[in-house]
Amino acid sequence: MWHLHQFTLCPFSRKLRFLMAEKGIVYELVRESPWDARDEFLHLNPAGMTPVLVAEDGSPPLADSQAICEYFEETVDQFPLISGSAFARAEIRRLVAWFDQIVYRDVVAPLLNERMIKRIVSRTSPDAGALRDAMRKANTHMDYMDYLLDHHSWMAGGTMSLADVAAAAHISVADYLGGIDWEGHRPTKRWYAGIKSRPSFRPLLAERMEVVTPPKYYDQPDF
Amino acid sequence: MWHLHQFTLCPFSRKLRFLMAEKGIVYELVRESPWDARDEFLHLNPAGMTPVLVAEDGSPPLADSQAICEYFEETVDQFPLISGSAFARAEIRRLVAWFDQIVYRDVVAPLLNERMIKRIVSRTSPDAGALRDAMRKANTHMDYMDYLLDHHSWMAGGTMSLADVAAAAHISVADYLGGIDWEGHRPTKRWYAGIKSRPSFRPLLAERMEVVTPPKYYDQPDF
Repeated sequence: MWHLHQFTLCPFSRKLRFLMAEKGIVYELVRESPWDARDEFLHLNPAGMTPVLVAEDGSPPLADSQAICEYFEETVDQFPLISGSAFARAEIRRLVAWFDQIVYRDVVAPLLNERMIKRIVSRTSPDAGALRDAMRKANTHMDYMDYLLDHHSWMAGGTMSLADVAAAAHISVADYLGGIDWEGHRPTKRWYAGIKSRPSFRPLLAERMEVVTPPKYYDQPDF
Repeated sequence: MWHLHQFTLCPFSRKLRFLMAEKGIVYELVRESPWDARDEFLHLNPAGMTPVLVAEDGSPPLADSQAICEYFEETVDQFPLISGSAFARAEIRRLVAWFDQIVYRDVVAPLLNERMIKRIVSRTSPDAGALRDAMRKANTHMDYMDYLLDHHSWMAGGTMSLADVAAAAHISVADYLGGIDWEGHRPTKRWYAGIKSRPSFRPLLAERMEVVTPPKYYDQPDF
């Protein structure tokens, strides 16, 4: 049994949990607040980030969501998420990096900071300008997702891949935090309705952070 | 022949160029300034980042340094850089992400911003506080590199891997920009002396950015 150190709204942990569920890998959750920078946690992962995955057999901990996803791609045959030609695999990994780095930096990280970290740590109000900026960038990035989904059924091609898993992880956190305006994004909305219906994704949508409440439609496949 | 869009002090392009040289893959350089955000470049890579690799045969461009490195790991047998057990491969990828994300964010990005971008774009002086902070963090991160190299000859184990390639790319850019104090970091210094001697790495050390001059010892294997 794996022990997964994470917190409810960590997009990188959601990416890993979605992949593990699709592959049928069981795990137990360990609640971690990386912003507390516990010594024991920094010892598990010097980068100070969730997710970290610890095996019961004393193997060294696995850290970094992409390194762990690649680990399961290599060791578990079920439901491959980085498949196809070398070019197709490069396109999947390019999009995963785009979601994990660009969408996270522009949209998810500022939303988490303004609407969650500030409430928990400094107990200050969110900066309206930073929120507006994150939502404006979310809209631009969703235009790009619409463009991708106008060309094929899934983010990186004709089949579901790790790019969809990463996209769903980041979009779901931004949506929880009220950062997504779905108006005018039909292709992405249709794609996300399909994601929301998956049994592997529903447990993520059922979880709540004590201090922050999501919009009413957040866990509804029909929204 | 590949066309590699990059600029001299881009650590992600250095990582890719170092890997391509070790694998014996030839390429031609195309100078790109991502901070100019040219439409043609954003069309090649919506993330707006170097490196981007374009084939002459009209194949879609490859973007994101890690996606491209994985592409060459899968398609070129020579000098494997992500090898060993699945756990060993996960450790290599964890460290690559640590250099590409944490060391880049804390050290390389602020140095590039203060010492290069400000000179080229806004023609303002570097912020002494930001430089001090980057150098302080560089020192902490080098303590961790010393720790890794106290346990094995290379960053991720007994053989050279993509973790060393990523480390060398980021350290060389930080060193060019005067951000590294080598005093007190014997294991990392010894490791870097070995990297500097490699024929695959020397062309990177020979290049100069017009507006910024590196320290005298920068390209000397004996420093």
